[in-house]
Amino acid sequence: MAQLLLLNGPNLNLLGLREPHHYGTATLADIEQHLTTLSQRTHHTLTPFQSNSEAELMNEIHAARDRYDFILFNPAAFTHTSVALRDALQGVAIPFIEIHLSNIHGREPFRSHSYFSDIAQGVISGFGPLGYELALHAACDYLERAS
Amino acid sequence: MAQLLLLNGPNLNLLGLREPHHYGTATLADIEQHLTTLSQRTHHTLTPFQSNSEAELMNEIHAARDRYDFILFNPAAFTHTSVALRDALQGVAIPFIEIHLSNIHGREPFRSHSYFSDIAQGVISGFGPLGYELALHAACDYLERAS
Amino acid sequence: MAQLLLLNGPNLNLLGLREPHHYGTATLADIEQHLTTLSQRTHHTLTPFQSNSEAELMNEIHAARDRYDFILFNPAAFTHTSVALRDALQGVAIPFIEIHLSNIHGREPFRSHSYFSDIAQGVISGFGPLGYELALHAACDYLERAS
Amino acid sequence: MAQLLLLNGPNLNLLGLREPHHYGTATLADIEQHLTTLSQRTHHTLTPFQSNSEAELMNEIHAARDRYDFILFNPAAFTHTSVALRDALQGVAIPFIEIHLSNIHGREPFRSHSYFSDIAQGVISGFGPLGYELALHAACDYLERAS
Amino acid sequence: MAQLLLLNGPNLNLLGLREPHHYGTATLADIEQHLTTLSQRTHHTLTPFQSNSEAELMNEIHAARDRYDFILFNPAAFTHTSVALRDALQGVAIPFIEIHLSNIHGREPFRSHSYFSDIAQGVISGFGPLGYELALHAACDYLERAS
Amino acid sequence: MAQLLLLNGPNLNLLGLREPHHYGTATLADIEQHLTTLSQRTHHTLTPFQSNSEAELMNEIHAARDRYDFILFNPAAFTHTSVALRDALQGVAIPFIEIHLSNIHGREPFRSHSYFSDIAQGVISGFGPLGYELALHAACDYLERAS
Amino acid sequence: MAQLLLLNGPNLNLLGLREPHHYGTATLADIEQHLTTLSQRTHHTLTPFQSNSEAELMNEIHAARDRYDFILFNPAAFTHTSVALRDALQGVAIPFIEIHLSNIHGREPFRSHSYFSDIAQGVISGFGPLGYELALHAACDYLERAS
Amino acid sequence: MAQLLLLNGPNLNLLGLREPHHYGTATLADIEQHLTTLSQRTHHTLTPFQSNSEAELMNEIHAARDRYDFILFNPAAFTHTSVALRDALQGVAIPFIEIHLSNIHGREPFRSHSYFSDIAQGVISGFGPLGYELALHAACDYLERAS
Amino acid sequence: MAQLLLLNGPNLNLLGLREPHHYGTATLADIEQHLTTLSQRTHHTLTPFQSNSEAELMNEIHAARDRYDFILFNPAAFTHTSVALRDALQGVAIPFIEIHLSNIHGREPFRSHSYFSDIAQGVISGFGPLGYELALHAACDYLERAS
Amino acid sequence: MAQLLLLNGPNLNLLGLREPHHYGTATLADIEQHLTTLSQRTHHTLTPFQSNSEAELMNEIHAARDRYDFILFNPAAFTHTSVALRDALQGVAIPFIEIHLSNIHGREPFRSHSYFSDIAQGVISGFGPLGYELALHAACDYLERAS
Amino acid sequence: MAQLLLLNGPNLNLLGLREPHHYGTATLADIEQHLTTLSQRTHHTLTPFQSNSEAELMNEIHAARDRYDFILFNPAAFTHTSVALRDALQGVAIPFIEIHLSNIHGREPFRSHSYFSDIAQGVISGFGPLGYELALHAACDYLERAS
Amino acid sequence: MAQLLLLNGPNLNLLGLREPHHYGTATLADIEQHLTTLSQRTHHTLTPFQSNSEAELMNEIHAARDRYDFILFNPAAFTHTSVALRDALQGVAIPFIEIHLSNIHGREPFRSHSYFSDIAQGVISGFGPLGYELALHAACDYLERAS
Repeated sequence: MAQLLLLNGPNLNLLGLREPHHYGTATLADIEQHLTTLSQRTHHTLTPFQSNSEAELMNEIHAARDRYDFILFNPAAFTHTSVALRDALQGVAIPFIEIHLSNIHGREPFRSHSYFSDIAQGVISGFGPLGYELALHAACDYLERAS
Repeated sequence: MAQLLLLNGPNLNLLGLREPHHYGTATLADIEQHLTTLSQRTHHTLTPFQSNSEAELMNEIHAARDRYDFILFNPAAFTHTSVALRDALQGVAIPFIEIHLSNIHGREPFRSHSYFSDIAQGVISGFGPLGYELALHAACDYLERAS
Repeated sequence: MAQLLLLNGPNLNLLGLREPHHYGTATLADIEQHLTTLSQRTHHTLTPFQSNSEAELMNEIHAARDRYDFILFNPAAFTHTSVALRDALQGVAIPFIEIHLSNIHGREPFRSHSYFSDIAQGVISGFGPLGYELALHAACDYLERAS
Repeated sequence: MAQLLLLNGPNLNLLGLREPHHYGTATLADIEQHLTTLSQRTHHTLTPFQSNSEAELMNEIHAARDRYDFILFNPAAFTHTSVALRDALQGVAIPFIEIHLSNIHGREPFRSHSYFSDIAQGVISGFGPLGYELALHAACDYLERAS
Repeated sequence: MAQLLLLNGPNLNLLGLREPHHYGTATLADIEQHLTTLSQRTHHTLTPFQSNSEAELMNEIHAARDRYDFILFNPAAFTHTSVALRDALQGVAIPFIEIHLSNIHGREPFRSHSYFSDIAQGVISGFGPLGYELALHAACDYLERAS
Repeated sequence: MAQLLLLNGPNLNLLGLREPHHYGTATLADIEQHLTTLSQRTHHTLTPFQSNSEAELMNEIHAARDRYDFILFNPAAFTHTSVALRDALQGVAIPFIEIHLSNIHGREPFRSHSYFSDIAQGVISGFGPLGYELALHAACDYLERAS
Repeated sequence: MAQLLLLNGPNLNLLGLREPHHYGTATLADIEQHLTTLSQRTHHTLTPFQSNSEAELMNEIHAARDRYDFILFNPAAFTHTSVALRDALQGVAIPFIEIHLSNIHGREPFRSHSYFSDIAQGVISGFGPLGYELALHAACDYLERAS
Repeated sequence: MAQLLLLNGPNLNLLGLREPHHYGTATLADIEQHLTTLSQRTHHTLTPFQSNSEAELMNEIHAARDRYDFILFNPAAFTHTSVALRDALQGVAIPFIEIHLSNIHGREPFRSHSYFSDIAQGVISGFGPLGYELALHAACDYLERAS
Repeated sequence: MAQLLLLNGPNLNLLGLREPHHYGTATLADIEQHLTTLSQRTHHTLTPFQSNSEAELMNEIHAARDRYDFILFNPAAFTHTSVALRDALQGVAIPFIEIHLSNIHGREPFRSHSYFSDIAQGVISGFGPLGYELALHAACDYLERAS
Repeated sequence: MAQLLLLNGPNLNLLGLREPHHYGTATLADIEQHLTTLSQRTHHTLTPFQSNSEAELMNEIHAARDRYDFILFNPAAFTHTSVALRDALQGVAIPFIEIHLSNIHGREPFRSHSYFSDIAQGVISGFGPLGYELALHAACDYLERAS
Repeated sequence: MAQLLLLNGPNLNLLGLREPHHYGTATLADIEQHLTTLSQRTHHTLTPFQSNSEAELMNEIHAARDRYDFILFNPAAFTHTSVALRDALQGVAIPFIEIHLSNIHGREPFRSHSYFSDIAQGVISGFGPLGYELALHAACDYLERAS
Repeated sequence: MAQLLLLNGPNLNLLGLREPHHYGTATLADIEQHLTTLSQRTHHTLTPFQSNSEAELMNEIHAARDRYDFILFNPAAFTHTSVALRDALQGVAIPFIEIHLSNIHGREPFRSHSYFSDIAQGVISGFGPLGYELALHAACDYLERAS
């Protein structure tokens, strides 16, 4: 039985509250609740954490070193700008999956570069909230093979 | 009940035969069998097709117009070079998911551009054969919401 | 009568304290006081907020959703680096004007790109503290036309 | 009396079947029939050939060496990716006109480069099916001047 | 019956006078006369205008707003440098075809970018004086479909 | 009491006549009249000049050397192409403000470079006709501080 | 005694038939015959294969896995465009030499990039048909050292 | 006797805890202790400060204006992304040395650009913890010459 | 005895009137007078022409075809922007020398590209008014060798 | 019977002494001896010359004008930096082959550009010392055909 | 006790003689004397060598293979242009430190790339002559840890 | 009476010996003799120096510090590659003119960048041997104005 950290980056606290026609009406709390429930079925424990602060996300990753086996990470806008979070993830060496709600390749050109993709276990983008489920599925698969 | 096309591009026929330490020992036939079985559980029908020929893949996509509701597509090397397959997919207007076995962001720089990502429903990369399962899962979810 | 948020980004708390020969001797408090007084004459209410923290600015923008009709925003150094603040502004969909004290086109090349200009109502740069007054003027004009 | 080859590249077999509001309802067969009739009036013989296969198009160009005096060529997606077809055309040294149905300059940036334009007699783009007529007109003019 | 403007840009007054082995011996007056005659057969009226002055061309385009239904435009050297003429054409919103006598893709690299192609109805390049005839043909076709 | 020159570049004579839903119904004459009246209240004299000709604008700037204290300048399309007007402004060394009606950062990429911004007192863009008022306000402020 | 595959890409079937003053009068059949004879002297067996089809070349490379010890490969136009053939060669892991008849560095700029050079044993370019002999020589040397 | 600030950026709190074979087993506390002791021998006072928060580092730099004569700064990941810290350092105008533990030129390409190097007194990179000692030595030398 | 045209581009009418400490006090009239006198000594006739208008310069070049044997040309700001003047010079095929008063390589980066240098007989830059004398010297030498 | 110059550039004197596991144990003297012997069999005379000095290599190329018929040249590091040696080879107009021991395309990006490839008879890279033999073979072939 | 080579590149013989206000009055001889004395205190032997010749520096590096344990290297202008010296240092595999007197990041853009930084033990730049002392300190530290 | 150094770079010793149809039959000795004679008429002394060695040219520039007032410099191929010679010229601070025999803008793209133009008094290119005379003329003019 493994410990998973569900890490969400900046502005994701607005989920479900803004542009419901585009992102759906599920709030971040809904998604976190749903993922927590799903992970219980796999006998893993998932702990959600969201912050708009790069430093808080970094501290959470640091603290994850002794507490978590896997990270599900939606870096949101920090995908394109944060070398510090990349360094944090490499520093603690916990495997992680990069998740994007929208298709980052169909938006502004600056969104097509990620500081995380080349060091992630895998990347899932464009599936909305379902992307988290897919990532959880993949994480469980990874943990099984690793154990 | 929907019809799904599992489309695999060039060199994927070598799967499981080459570099087993890297890609695992599952052959393409194994994966196709596994996906077919999985899709039956969801009461959808999945038909696999692989070709090393850009023209044959294009023809299959053209023919898909009247036969399939969704495409699971691993364009492999054509990801980076085929405008013709992009045009074919846009021409038939069938929703599709782009799948990559390996993490294309952690390899040669020319692999980080895709002619498909911006028009796909979503992209899944880096999870090996599991990626197909995740894509099937996402396709079913899409078809349910669309029906 | 509308609510305006005057948002100032990193290092602007140093205004008037550093390089007085270059930026003038007006402190940020002076400017905030002056703008508040000016806005009262137009029967609008202006609330100033400054932070060196990207997360605090983001939180303020999030909170602005239910409280403010317009934002006067000098993103300072975050102009060139913060996708997260861009996303926050798009998320809350409050119209805003981008303000720069100095002429960003006459400085280092990296300052000529802004993550905000293409989604702002307008951009005012190079006029020192007067730029805030011009922006207030333009905001009032916008609010009148919108009401 | 000259022999003309009307060569159409990938996905053009879908013409008239997809996006009729955009490309009109004329099918490729309609266009080929129309061009054949038009060329007869000029006492030239036009033979149509379409393929989704780069190799088949190449073989047709090779075979054209002893059979055709001029090529009307819509390379479609291969415009932007096929050095092999460029080499084939240079190898057989038959004069040709490059035709595009849509305005390639008003679409994705990767469509603004052509591997054929600098070696073509001329380029006609953006006029829909009419572009073929214009090209036939120009080809006849060329053949008259050359004879 | 429609009104067409045949607009020719800088240096085209030299046509037929310079490099006859390359551009042929037809002068601009010859071409204008020929096009005027051809348009009469289609019951349209064509008025020619040439200038070496960007401002005069701009003024002619402005004046065209109430007088012409279509513009045949060879911007010559201004193809690569004039945002002002682009703005003028967008301002009056008259449909136009871009014409080039020589193959601009087979010359200096700076000639491969045009400020007009993406907003033109279509582009014809490389056919010498015949290009004007082809454009007239296409303009008539456009006017018929539009009427 | 100072002399101000209101300089408007190419195509701005079309203002209010084209795309009224986009640019409003105010003509250039309206704007010039409005600015002239406004400047009188500040006891300054404003003289308007518009031309579609780069040479005429240049000559006006040259002539300004002995006649004007400040220039309000909307270079329109010449913003992106005219080194000659840049040199003229540097030659006469009259302070000026660069004005754009629309948000040039939200349009075609070639519009994001200006040959004037780095040598202007300041830049105002995206506010429509109001931008001229803001610039007049800033010019008066400049002249007061300079006197 | 080893098995060698002589693989020739698109348009090379035209060799000796086109531009004899440039490429000489030796046909591909002549070269294949000559190489076969030469390899016999070294007690190796060389099998020639040419195709204009990327898919057929790929299939031949796949089939080579159990049949050949070394590949002499002239990818011709596919040098610059085929990631799929690169992947095929890496997939079967057979050592190969890249050969070009002409000096690719003295031609169009797009010919100076190869998708094969960095994974080839070595590259020989510019020597015409002799290049194949040099490559055979090098292959024999490699096979001797490897045995 | 001068006051020195030893400023360490994001993730450096992990020092000695992660990848000891690479960075050695010295923790940040060890280094801070060692530098403090060394500085006492030079009769200077060194105060260490580390934060993962860009805002806290900025605030520390602002506060340094009245308290410190020199800054030894390892910006870590912020080297490549923080214009705000650059502006802070220029705002307070305290001389500083940029320090990197590892050789940033031998890592990912995005690490070869620094927002600090051109405004630093000097740069020391690649020497591990010893780099801090070298920087302290250089700072003392600077302070002596400046006094 | 030959005819020379001394052609000066935009803003050069300000010479001697602006920035005398930088460009000297010689006006354009002084220079033109001096060159005319100098050319008489060589038994050649030099005619000066200056314009701020690209069209007037173009017309002068066109008219030069039957009147002048050589052109001394300082294109000033048009150096970097005028394809039309380049085309005019190539159209009339009169040999010319490109002259710049200041060192264009020591100024803004956009000044280091010239549309004339590659088709000029030679280029002289950085010598102030003396550059015209050197060019006259070179022109006479050219005319002697050509006669 | 022809005279050949075997020219080796900087650091090649270290051959066989450094990194024997990578470059083999053959010293430059061994290679020079071997090539000299091989050339005698072809009744040609080969003279070896190595220098670490660009000037000495240039002088040797100058002196070659009257003494040698062909040059076998391994420019080593000067491949990527020496315009002077390129000019020397073009100045004396002696045909030459460019040789590289290692595969320059599989190393640092700056090694993929050569100042010699576009003017060489051909290029051979990646075959270690054998490359010299292949080049000698090709040189003899060239000399036979040229005689 | 180790042997150190102090290697100085082109123009450094002018040190102390040119621009004393900028580089100080210490000559290269002074620095070499000072470093020699300092190294003696650490019981190491330091030998200085300066040359303006790339070839002489290369030869000295070659000769260092059997004589020196460490190199302190200021490549000066060769930093940006010499692949040959890079190859020499890699060939002899002696650890070295790269030193620059001035801050190369605050000068012309072409100075920000170094052919040595990624293979050096570390880089020290911007500290004037003190940089050599720091490098000596670091070298001693390296030698101690390595012994 | 001033001392002038005529400095010629690599391969210029071949002048008059190679490609006489292109560069004329004047040897470097002829040119040096001619310039020496010309300078005597102006009561200046000119000393010629040519070398193919960057180091020798650098040493000559160093030695020039106490001996020459002006340098006429044709850097030839070193124009595009030598930062060291640039540094040497800046180190000795002797004014110089950059001369090129051929028009460097009409040749390979890599020849359009010079490491000397932005720090030269002026640049003269494309006039063959006459360029030296023009430079001497300009040097004398400079020396007169400076004295």
